[in-house]
Amino acid sequence: MMKKRIGQFLIDEIAKQGVDKIFGVPGDFNLTFLDDIEAHETLEWVGNTNELNASYAADGYARLNGLAAMVTTFGVGELSAVNGIAGSYAENVPVIQITGAPTTVVEQAGKYVHHSLGNGKFDDYQKMYAQITETQTVLTVDNALTEIPRIIKVATEEKRPVHVHLPIDIAAKEIEVPDDVAYPATQKAENVSTVVEKLTERLKAAQQVTLIVGHQINSYGLQKDVQAIAEKLNLPVAQLSLGKGSFNEESAQYMGVYDGYIAEDNIRDYVDGSDLVITLGAKLTDSATAGFSQKFSNDTIVTLNHRDVKVGDYTTTEPSLPEIVEAFKNIDFKYGGDFPQYQWPDVSAAVYNDEPLTQENYFNLMQNFLRKGDVILGEQGTSFFGAYRLALQEGTTFIGQPLWGSIGYTLPSTLGTLLAAPERRHVLLIGDGSLQLTAQEMSTMVRQNLNPVIFIINNDGYTVEKKIHGENAKYNDIQMWDYKLLPALFGNKDIPTYDVKTSNDLKVAMDQIDQNPDTMHVVEVHMDVLDAPANLNEISKAFAAQNK
Amino acid sequence: MMKKRIGQFLIDEIAKQGVDKIFGVPGDFNLTFLDDIEAHETLEWVGNTNELNASYAADGYARLNGLAAMVTTFGVGELSAVNGIAGSYAENVPVIQITGAPTTVVEQAGKYVHHSLGNGKFDDYQKMYAQITETQTVLTVDNALTEIPRIIKVATEEKRPVHVHLPIDIAAKEIEVPDDVAYPATQKAENVSTVVEKLTERLKAAQQVTLIVGHQINSYGLQKDVQAIAEKLNLPVAQLSLGKGSFNEESAQYMGVYDGYIAEDNIRDYVDGSDLVITLGAKLTDSATAGFSQKFSNDTIVTLNHRDVKVGDYTTTEPSLPEIVEAFKNIDFKYGGDFPQYQWPDVSAAVYNDEPLTQENYFNLMQNFLRKGDVILGEQGTSFFGAYRLALQEGTTFIGQPLWGSIGYTLPSTLGTLLAAPERRHVLLIGDGSLQLTAQEMSTMVRQNLNPVIFIINNDGYTVEKKIHGENAKYNDIQMWDYKLLPALFGNKDIPTYDVKTSNDLKVAMDQIDQNPDTMHVVEVHMDVLDAPANLNEISKAFAAQNK
Repeated sequence: MMKKRIGQFLIDEIAKQGVDKIFGVPGDFNLTFLDDIEAHETLEWVGNTNELNASYAADGYARLNGLAAMVTTFGVGELSAVNGIAGSYAENVPVIQITGAPTTVVEQAGKYVHHSLGNGKFDDYQKMYAQITETQTVLTVDNALTEIPRIIKVATEEKRPVHVHLPIDIAAKEIEVPDDVAYPATQKAENVSTVVEKLTERLKAAQQVTLIVGHQINSYGLQKDVQAIAEKLNLPVAQLSLGKGSFNEESAQYMGVYDGYIAEDNIRDYVDGSDLVITLGAKLTDSATAGFSQKFSNDTIVTLNHRDVKVGDYTTTEPSLPEIVEAFKNIDFKYGGDFPQYQWPDVSAAVYNDEPLTQENYFNLMQNFLRKGDVILGEQGTSFFGAYRLALQEGTTFIGQPLWGSIGYTLPSTLGTLLAAPERRHVLLIGDGSLQLTAQEMSTMVRQNLNPVIFIINNDGYTVEKKIHGENAKYNDIQMWDYKLLPALFGNKDIPTYDVKTSNDLKVAMDQIDQNPDTMHVVEVHMDVLDAPANLNEISKAFAAQNK
Repeated sequence: MMKKRIGQFLIDEIAKQGVDKIFGVPGDFNLTFLDDIEAHETLEWVGNTNELNASYAADGYARLNGLAAMVTTFGVGELSAVNGIAGSYAENVPVIQITGAPTTVVEQAGKYVHHSLGNGKFDDYQKMYAQITETQTVLTVDNALTEIPRIIKVATEEKRPVHVHLPIDIAAKEIEVPDDVAYPATQKAENVSTVVEKLTERLKAAQQVTLIVGHQINSYGLQKDVQAIAEKLNLPVAQLSLGKGSFNEESAQYMGVYDGYIAEDNIRDYVDGSDLVITLGAKLTDSATAGFSQKFSNDTIVTLNHRDVKVGDYTTTEPSLPEIVEAFKNIDFKYGGDFPQYQWPDVSAAVYNDEPLTQENYFNLMQNFLRKGDVILGEQGTSFFGAYRLALQEGTTFIGQPLWGSIGYTLPSTLGTLLAAPERRHVLLIGDGSLQLTAQEMSTMVRQNLNPVIFIINNDGYTVEKKIHGENAKYNDIQMWDYKLLPALFGNKDIPTYDVKTSNDLKVAMDQIDQNPDTMHVVEVHMDVLDAPANLNEISKAFAAQNK
C-alpha cells in the first residue's frame, strides 16, 4: 500500500499502459493536477495551442502507441475537444479525455463560476460526452480505486475514448493504493465457437471468397494475425481505404484496395463476383466504397467486427475482435480458388520535367519518395484519396480519417505520431484548405524540435468540395496564404521551405529532404485547383449523387 | 403565396431579422444550401477558417447586430462549433446554428456515411446541442413553415442560440410560403404586477439601495431603458465586468464597476453596505465578484433576471427581461440616499518614457487612445481584466466573455463585430497565449479587407494561469511566435505592424493608427511575463483559493 493523490494515481495507471506523453491545454481547473504530471518520472506534458488540436494529437499518438491521454479545463476546453474525441470514437481510437473541473464544494453549491453555463449545473458537458465516448466517470475519493482501472480497461479493450470528470479538489485528495491495483477481468464471449461454426459452413459452401479487412484491425494491432489467417486459409485479401495498413501489402494473399466501382478492374471484378465476402474489422462506408457502389449483395456478406457479428441470420454483439481473430486462425479450411494478385507500381511511372505539376505525377513521385518504416498521414481531400492508393512496404504506417473525415485532423495528428515514434520518419500530405483549420499546431512541432516532412498542396480552395458541388462557387474559395512563412512565424527561420511548381522542383526538394533528415521540411506544392486524383473525381460524383 | 425551397425560406426569414452575413465552413452536406446563400440578395456568406472561429464570429456579430446565423456541415463541423455556441448560451447571445445533414433517405436507412459515428444513428449530435441551445429542430417538408418562425422567435426572444438540423434534400424541397409568415405570439407573463408590487415594497423599506446591471441588459439592448429607470427613481448604479456597457458611464447615476472586494473603496463600501441590492439582468459570478467576495448578504438581493426573478420568498420564471424593465420604469419611487459618483480617470495618468512598458501604463495609454463609438474587445486574461476598468463614453461598445471565459474567443469575435458595424473602429486587446488558439481568423479579416486595430501582448505565456497557479511551471509557457509575420502569412505584407517595448513606442504606434484609419494595424506589445493589472492579481488569488 502507498498513499497517492488521486491525480497521481490516475496518471500512474495511464503511464503503466505505456503512455509517455499527455496532451492538452492548461486552465485554472486543472493546474494543480498538471503539477503532478510535470513532476511525473516518465510522463511528459505536451502543451498544445488549442484543445481541438490536442484531441487530434492524442488520436494520432494513440494510433501508433495504443492509448493516449489528454487534459482540458472544464467547459471551454472540454467542449473544444469534442470533434476530435468523436473522431476517435467513430474510428476506434482509445483516448482518455480528462477534464479538470471545479471543486466538489463549488459543484454541490451550484455556484455561478466561470466556464459553467451560469445555471448552477455541472453535468451538462458530461451528458454531451456520453454521446461520443464509450464510458464516463466522475471521480470521487470513494470510487477512484475502482473507476480509474475500469475506464482504462474500457478504453484499451473497446478501443474507444472515455471521459473523466476530475474535480480539482478530488485530484489532490490522497487515497491508499495497493501494490497490485485490481483491474476488471476481461469478459469472454460464450458464443465464439458458434460464430466459427457458422463461418466455417459459409467458407465450405462458397465458390469465390474475399476477405475485406479494415480499420479495426489497426486499432487492435492484429495485422500479423490477420496475415496468418489469410496465409493459412489461402484467403485473398482486399483492404479498405478506411483501414489501409491493416494488411501487409507485400503478402501473396493481397489483392489491393477495394473501393467499389473505382477499384482496379481485376480486383473489383473478383470482389464484386464473390459469393462470400467476409468483412473483418471493416465497415463498408460511403467513402470506402465510392458511395456504396459494391456489387456483391448483402447476403454474401459475413460481418466480423468488434462486438458486431452477422453470419446469415445469426447475429451477436458479444465477441471482441481479438476473440474473433483468434478463433478464425484455428479454422480448418483452405481456399482453392484463383484470385488477382496486387501489382506493385512501376518506379518509372514518375515523370520529371518543368511542366506544371499534376496530381497524378505528384503521387507517382511520392511513391518513389516513401521509405519502408515511414509514417504517412493523408489529409481528407486530394491528399488522402491520392495517398491511399500508394503501395506501402511492410512496417510502413498509414493514417487517414475517412469515416470521420474532419478536415484539419492530420496536422495535429502528425504531432501525435511524431511523439509516439520519434525514431521514424513522418510524412504529412495535406492541402491548403485543411491546413488553415489547425495550422498553429506546427508551432508545437517547432517547440518540440520535431522533424516531420510536410507537403502542403496550395491549390487555392477546397478542391474536394468543388469536385462534389460548386466548382466556381465563392464559398469554396479560401484566402491564399504564404505557407512558407509558417516556420518563421512559429519561431524557427532555419527550417527549410520549398516552393514547388514542377516535378523537377519536387525532385530537388525530395532529394534535399533525403539528405537532411534531422530537420523539419515544409514543401509548398502548387497544383491546379481542379486537378485531383482520378479516384477522387469519381468518389466526388458519388457523394454529390448521395446528397440528392 | 410563393414557392420557395426550404433553405431559401430559412435564410429569407433570418435576413428579415436584419442579418446580412452568415458565417461558417462549407462541407458536402451543406453545399447546395450554400448556393441559395450565395444567390441571396441581401445575405453574404463569410467563409471562416474553421468552425469554432465561425461560432465566435457569429457571437461577436450577434452582440452588435442582435442576431447571427452560421452554417456547418454534419458532425465534424457541427461539433467543432459547440464551444462557441455554449458560450453564446451562457452569455445570452442569439445565434442560429444550422447544420447541413445527410439526406432523409440516408438517415432513415441508417447508412454508414462519412461524418457519422459509423453506428447508423443520426441524432447523437442533436442530443449534444440540446445541452447548450435553447431549442432545437429537425426540419421536414411538413414542419418548416412553423418550425422556422418558431426557432427564430425563440432565439430573438430568449437571446440564446438554437440548433437547426437541415437534411440537405429537405433544404432543396419547395414549399408554399404565404406572404405573411406567421410567427408565434409573444407570451405575456401574468405576474409582472406582483413582481413590481413586491419590488416597490422593498424599495420603500430600504435605507441604502444599489442597482447592479449586467450582461443581459446588453443582450436585450435595454441600456437606455435602464438609464431611464435609474434617473427616474434616482437609483445608484454599478456595472459588473460581466455586462460592461450595460450602463451609460456618463450618467450621474453611475458609481462604477463593482467587482467585489477589489472595487474602488467608495463603491465597494456603498454596495457592500446596501440593505437592498437589485441585480437587473446581472449574474454575480466568481469572476465578476473576485470570487464571491461581495459583503452584502443574500437576503438583501432582489434578482430581476430574464425568466429568473426572486424578491424575498417570491420566485417566478415567467417574466422576460423586457417585461421586467418596462414595469420597473413605471414604479413610483424616488431614492433619497447619497451615493458615490464615478470618477473619470485623469488623462495625465499616462506616462511616456523609454522604460519597459508596464501593464498599468499600457492601460493608461489605452484610456487616452479610445474614442467615443469604438468597439473594444478584451480577451480573457490581462487584456479583459485591464480593459473592464477603462472609462467608456456613451456609444462605445465593450465586449468580453468573463462568464464563459474561453481563451481565443475575441479574435474571431472581432471579425464578427467588424462585419456587423463596418463604419466603427474596432480595437482588439489580446494576449499571446489566447491569440494562438484562433490566430488564423485574422486571415478572414485580411480577405474581407477589414481594418481592426489589434494589440497583441507578447509576454511569453499564459500570464493569468501563472497568476493563479504554477508561476514557474513549464505547462504555463508557450512557444514564442513572431506575431508581426501574421499579416504577411495571411497574404497582405502592406499591413502596418509595430514592435512596442516602451510607452514612447506605444505612443508612436497609436499616433500612426490615428493617422491611418483605413488599414488594419497589428501592434506587438512586449511586457513582463508576470506583470498584470492590479485587479487580476487579486482575482487570481480568489480563483486559486476557490480551487482548494
